[in-house]
Amino acid sequence: MTKAQVGETVRLSGWVHRKRDHGGLLFIDLRDHYGITQLVFDPDFAEPFAAAERVRAESVIKVEGPVIARSAETVNENLVTGAIEVQVKSMEVLSPAEELPLPVFGEPDYPEDTRLRYRFLDLRRETLHRNIVLRSKVISSIRRRMTDEGFMEFQTPILTASSPEGARDFLVPSRLHPGQFYALPQAPQQFKQLIMVAGFDRYFQIAPCFRDEDARADRSPGEFYQLDMEMSFVEQDDIFAAIEPVLHGLFEEFGNGQAVTPYPFPRIPYAEAMRKYGSDKPDLRIPIEMEEVTPHFAGSGFKVFANLIANDPKVEVWAIPAPGGGSRAFCDRMNAWAQGEGQPGLGYIFFREEGGEIQGAGPVAKNIGPERTEAIRTQLGLKDGDAVFFVCGQPKHFVSFAGQARVKIGTDLETLPKKEGFNFCWVVDFPMYEWDEEEKKIDFSHNPFSMPNYPHEEFVKLDREKDADTILGMTAFQYDIVCNGIELSSGAVRNHRPEVMYKAFELAGYDKDVVENKFGGMLSAFKYGAPPHGGLAPGIDRMVMLLAGVDNLREVTLFPMNQQAQDLMMQAPSDVSNAQLRELNIRVVQPEKK
Amino acid sequence: MTKAQVGETVRLSGWVHRKRDHGGLLFIDLRDHYGITQLVFDPDFAEPFAAAERVRAESVIKVEGPVIARSAETVNENLVTGAIEVQVKSMEVLSPAEELPLPVFGEPDYPEDTRLRYRFLDLRRETLHRNIVLRSKVISSIRRRMTDEGFMEFQTPILTASSPEGARDFLVPSRLHPGQFYALPQAPQQFKQLIMVAGFDRYFQIAPCFRDEDARADRSPGEFYQLDMEMSFVEQDDIFAAIEPVLHGLFEEFGNGQAVTPYPFPRIPYAEAMRKYGSDKPDLRIPIEMEEVTPHFAGSGFKVFANLIANDPKVEVWAIPAPGGGSRAFCDRMNAWAQGEGQPGLGYIFFREEGGEIQGAGPVAKNIGPERTEAIRTQLGLKDGDAVFFVCGQPKHFVSFAGQARVKIGTDLETLPKKEGFNFCWVVDFPMYEWDEEEKKIDFSHNPFSMPNYPHEEFVKLDREKDADTILGMTAFQYDIVCNGIELSSGAVRNHRPEVMYKAFELAGYDKDVVENKFGGMLSAFKYGAPPHGGLAPGIDRMVMLLAGVDNLREVTLFPMNQQAQDLMMQAPSDVSNAQLRELNIRVVQPEKK
Repeated sequence: MTKAQVGETVRLSGWVHRKRDHGGLLFIDLRDHYGITQLVFDPDFAEPFAAAERVRAESVIKVEGPVIARSAETVNENLVTGAIEVQVKSMEVLSPAEELPLPVFGEPDYPEDTRLRYRFLDLRRETLHRNIVLRSKVISSIRRRMTDEGFMEFQTPILTASSPEGARDFLVPSRLHPGQFYALPQAPQQFKQLIMVAGFDRYFQIAPCFRDEDARADRSPGEFYQLDMEMSFVEQDDIFAAIEPVLHGLFEEFGNGQAVTPYPFPRIPYAEAMRKYGSDKPDLRIPIEMEEVTPHFAGSGFKVFANLIANDPKVEVWAIPAPGGGSRAFCDRMNAWAQGEGQPGLGYIFFREEGGEIQGAGPVAKNIGPERTEAIRTQLGLKDGDAVFFVCGQPKHFVSFAGQARVKIGTDLETLPKKEGFNFCWVVDFPMYEWDEEEKKIDFSHNPFSMPNYPHEEFVKLDREKDADTILGMTAFQYDIVCNGIELSSGAVRNHRPEVMYKAFELAGYDKDVVENKFGGMLSAFKYGAPPHGGLAPGIDRMVMLLAGVDNLREVTLFPMNQQAQDLMMQAPSDVSNAQLRELNIRVVQPEKK
Repeated sequence: MTKAQVGETVRLSGWVHRKRDHGGLLFIDLRDHYGITQLVFDPDFAEPFAAAERVRAESVIKVEGPVIARSAETVNENLVTGAIEVQVKSMEVLSPAEELPLPVFGEPDYPEDTRLRYRFLDLRRETLHRNIVLRSKVISSIRRRMTDEGFMEFQTPILTASSPEGARDFLVPSRLHPGQFYALPQAPQQFKQLIMVAGFDRYFQIAPCFRDEDARADRSPGEFYQLDMEMSFVEQDDIFAAIEPVLHGLFEEFGNGQAVTPYPFPRIPYAEAMRKYGSDKPDLRIPIEMEEVTPHFAGSGFKVFANLIANDPKVEVWAIPAPGGGSRAFCDRMNAWAQGEGQPGLGYIFFREEGGEIQGAGPVAKNIGPERTEAIRTQLGLKDGDAVFFVCGQPKHFVSFAGQARVKIGTDLETLPKKEGFNFCWVVDFPMYEWDEEEKKIDFSHNPFSMPNYPHEEFVKLDREKDADTILGMTAFQYDIVCNGIELSSGAVRNHRPEVMYKAFELAGYDKDVVENKFGGMLSAFKYGAPPHGGLAPGIDRMVMLLAGVDNLREVTLFPMNQQAQDLMMQAPSDVSNAQLRELNIRVVQPEKK
């Protein structure tokens, strides 16, 4: 309500958000789904005044009275209804509230267990209420955007078959088929591929997925949702071109004016992402790119590195520039952090101007001498006040630590100008295979069902032994979509050719029998005319978390389970009757006490 | 493609729908999600011609060539692309098809098991493909309409608690809590009420629901979907006013021009529906309304009825008019049908003009005489060529049969003009309680959570013994939405007042303890300020079946289970490993062989 309604008599219903006593008048902030309206109770209207005195916070009331303008000094600019109040002439309590186990007004910190047990109160709190509304709007917008692009939403089964791979399934005992079980889908992966084989060419679904995994902040212990999508008769770029406007538009719509990477989003080959960012989910907000600087250390006076390089041709030195990090204090802090992470330390050089010249300082600079120091500075384009850190060894061993160090440096350097907003990129060209050090064999690097980026006629002729290098060097049409260092989804152009699939498994050491046993359904479908197809499945929860700016999934989920996979409000899981178990032909076997 | 593109060279991909040999030329109907395009292969282009000769139906191919106009006599007006064809100059087989287990072209009848096992082929068939597209569009339209009306969609948990009432639950063993189980929701009933208590005022969800019940044609053995909705701060009429435009608009949009009841839809009190139609889901397409005609038989010469009436004041005679059914052949056929249904028969009178006067014929008319016959004719407004059938007894015993007879008469009378299109109505004012003859006590008639239509202050003072008549005569704010004799949903204004709920259960003979044990979660929520609220949940599958004009759920479901609750394509349910069972702390107990 606004000033335009002053003088009208209105009827309002809602919750008693807050009660205040003020100069003989009583004020109640009345709250509903849409916001707050101030009610004023004058002792002249004795009945509603007495009722207002008695009513407890969070009771549901219905009031009637004229809208009046607030005096200038009591106008609240922060409220839509801040210019008016309602003078209550009659009031009815529709539902009285008992003493609250969890306060709503002011949202004081409360233990998570209490919040989950009384989720219906927790959800009345402004922040959570807003997040849940945001989530609903995000999903609704995604649906509209996908539909506008010609995608159709289909529901795939929730009672389905146990997956032959991946995470742990939730199982559902079958009553009609004793000893047999359904499984809840970890993702509708096979179904969406079968939808393509069935001749629908653009599918999506806001799909519930289930994994019986232990909880993490960004993953529920039970169910989560993804924007599952798949297209046929497409190549990788077509898939990117279809989803980029959806993601871009979505983050523009709900990003509160923050910048969103324009599309086409950058495509970063996996190898380059690892090299520059030490991660296949680079946080592009941090303007730091790593570079190899091995030659500057080979044969240098910094013996630790020089010896490693001399002894193993696979050893490299990578530099992590730290613009503006050029103080001994910062460098020592990073070094100490590295040691805390179980590393031997983090070598560094920091640069300062002395007598009109930029000079490197610190033990590394001393050991390698001014010429090599200057060469490093030039290669990385560093200036007075900058620093650079080094990691040395076989990249496959240190790359993940180097990536962490890059993020740590970028985050701790508060003066470093970060990129604002939502920074998207694709990481592409994932390796199809990798060397399994333990089993001493070639194995799939990520998804066995991705299409190898290799001519098919030649692929089917490859020999596991003779062509090992070729095989290990091969990439797949597999990609990740990443935003601000968070992987929203993997995706791939799928392998839809049975002969290529048999070969792909053979190269990883799996017999035809194994493939047919495990993936017979899909394989059989591919033998009756399968279109080339591919897709991805960005996580809904993660996108909403990014947009809401929260890092706990339970802040964007309506009725989440706790970390122990319990719904404290509904009391799930719970005991069931023996009759129910008998009907399902199962018996509980209590684990032995340890 | 249309004539406008003649001369352009195009590239097309799709499935080989049908191959024909014609005057030295080869024709292939190429099919994709959107339709059919005719390809023509000329032996002059030897390579594609040879490839086309070899390719099997349902293979996926890619072709290139110019669009040419068809000769006048080969234009196909039924196809969007019927004026053109593509002269193929090159062709690639993207995915060859093996011999098909289920033909696609022509959609010949095939056993359901084969269709379900090869669902990805079945779905390529035109009719099923179209139904599935319809289903997707219907759901998308519902979402848009609900959103436009200010409803927000929220996802409620799928792993939740076992329901204390209703159908059989699917259970999911908990790994972390040995011996405890989640249940899949039979409906998000409690969640949607909690959403209202949480202060969201207009909720909907295309909600997956799960019931471990045996299959019926119109119900899956596993999961089904409903348009679950709930609103707060509303009364019954507000709920009707919110959903009517959605249903009306939906059926107008997808009803192929068939008439849809304008809203507000008729509201028929339960008692009236039973009286007029013998059903609480009346098929209003049939223009027959029953009437009570007891007085015309009391003391009459038709002794069977007269004696029953004399001996029991509860006995009534109902008349089912049959306009145009006035032939002995038809009346005898109905009588025989009634006997086949286990009834003693169906008394009748049929009317014919003789010498300028309309006279009743048949044994009943003979027994009651011309005056009573004429009185019945006048009451029912019957004319020459009409008939009327009678059922006699206590209405509660015969009403369901009378309703069936009404439908049978209406359906068999082919000359009777039926109402076209989609005929909606609300059945309202369901009784809150009924007399349980077996247990000799008052029990809930339908939903214990509906709000009784009775002043609350007086309701809580009712006495189970003394006020039995009042209690049994009381209605509830509970309603059904019905279309063409199919119940799409029940719904209700909910009982949100703990003291009224305790009383409602007390009147049905349940102690406070029982209520708190079974429904403690909801009750507790209602103690912290609950708004008045209500809703309903029309079945998605049923609406799509109505719109698609099919009577088997599997014709509008993407990947349905068979009648034995098996997914033949994915092989669900299936055996799982002992390791999985151990992790879940359960063991299979094979039932004893009978």
